[in-house]
Amino acid sequence: MSGRLIGVGTGPGDPELMTVKAVRALAAADVVAHFAKKGNAGNARAIVAAHLRPEAIELPLYYPVTTEVHRKDAAYVDDITAFYEESARAVAAHLDAGRTVAVLSEGDPLFYGSYMHLHVRLSDRYPTEVIPGVTAMSGSWSAVGQPITQGDDVLTVLPGTLDESELARRLAGTDAAVIMKVGRNLPHIRRALAAAGRLADAFYVERATMPAMAAVRLADKPDDIAPYFSIVLVPGWKGRS
Amino acid sequence: MSGRLIGVGTGPGDPELMTVKAVRALAAADVVAHFAKKGNAGNARAIVAAHLRPEAIELPLYYPVTTEVHRKDAAYVDDITAFYEESARAVAAHLDAGRTVAVLSEGDPLFYGSYMHLHVRLSDRYPTEVIPGVTAMSGSWSAVGQPITQGDDVLTVLPGTLDESELARRLAGTDAAVIMKVGRNLPHIRRALAAAGRLADAFYVERATMPAMAAVRLADKPDDIAPYFSIVLVPGWKGRS
Repeated sequence: MSGRLIGVGTGPGDPELMTVKAVRALAAADVVAHFAKKGNAGNARAIVAAHLRPEAIELPLYYPVTTEVHRKDAAYVDDITAFYEESARAVAAHLDAGRTVAVLSEGDPLFYGSYMHLHVRLSDRYPTEVIPGVTAMSGSWSAVGQPITQGDDVLTVLPGTLDESELARRLAGTDAAVIMKVGRNLPHIRRALAAAGRLADAFYVERATMPAMAAVRLADKPDDIAPYFSIVLVPGWKGRS
Repeated sequence: MSGRLIGVGTGPGDPELMTVKAVRALAAADVVAHFAKKGNAGNARAIVAAHLRPEAIELPLYYPVTTEVHRKDAAYVDDITAFYEESARAVAAHLDAGRTVAVLSEGDPLFYGSYMHLHVRLSDRYPTEVIPGVTAMSGSWSAVGQPITQGDDVLTVLPGTLDESELARRLAGTDAAVIMKVGRNLPHIRRALAAAGRLADAFYVERATMPAMAAVRLADKPDDIAPYFSIVLVPGWKGRS
């Protein structure tokens, strides 16, 4: 009998924002895997720390690179693909031994999460369950108390890595927007928002729902230094009645 | 001392998908309010049933109308605005009496939720907290095990109430899409997906994460009858590697 693969959404950061189902899954898992950078246990691991069984086997999966300078280089793509293959084999070995493996995923596993690289490699061969989680974007708009969408609003979720002109075009054509992966892209995100006439509406949130959270109107953010996982929100619902 | 207003996301339907924070907030709330149609306790109330204190005061807020045929009529807008004003007064009376009021919201409170009509009326006058929840869309893509976005994908969330041509245009210009409020709009949603060349990719999910959940490829759904809160998913991440 093979074990079960479970993708576990840990929520945006506050351990209290884990679901009851995620807590129960971690309390029962034989193996707890998580992606991380070498030398850094990772946020997902920190979020769930209080819920792991002492006897659970931990399986950290360390990325082969620590920067994303050359994300589209062939050598990078080969390295990262080999890493996901090797990670899937490591997880499969535990599944073959009959162990339940919980794979941690910050936020929601199938929404821009690393877990899905294992999911597409293993879910057709092993019993698999995905436990959805509260996303970082929900954590962000809740933290600033800004309704994001209402009624017939269109919401567009955009990676900050898009070109400035493409960002501006998409921001001008939506009621509400969330811009992910802000980091070093903040200067051109700011210009794109201004070009689309939406800069005054925008909020900047970093480390949403964590003790070190920072949240301000983007217009009031004094510089353009931002961590990679910060988020920019452009609330919709113009009427607000 | 006034009481505290708490918008509580209940998640998509499975009570286990409530957050630990939501469970704790409900266990401590003096008053639990929820929006509902007359004669129907509502999904949010059903989701949290096991977590309410027996001595909590329940405050159901019944919508004045049960159909949405004339949503843009002036009379409807007047009625619904008066209803939200009256609901805010009813909640404020408890807050003024020093009671903590938890307002239930299916999914996430600030993402297409009724709670926000109270939030915009009360959050500047009373201490307010919003507890984010797992959205119905996260519940849906997790239930069908379909990664929705990866890497630099753009996600567009669209209400099914949009015109067919507008839907088709937006579907053709995005990597991934979620179409909310399907219901009677399913026939034109299906045609818009076909026009955008995305019908074969689409999944149909109703009552995600609940016992009566139904989830199929949209191409395999044999008719065009759908409940209002069903969802259509168009997964992104073409490469899947």
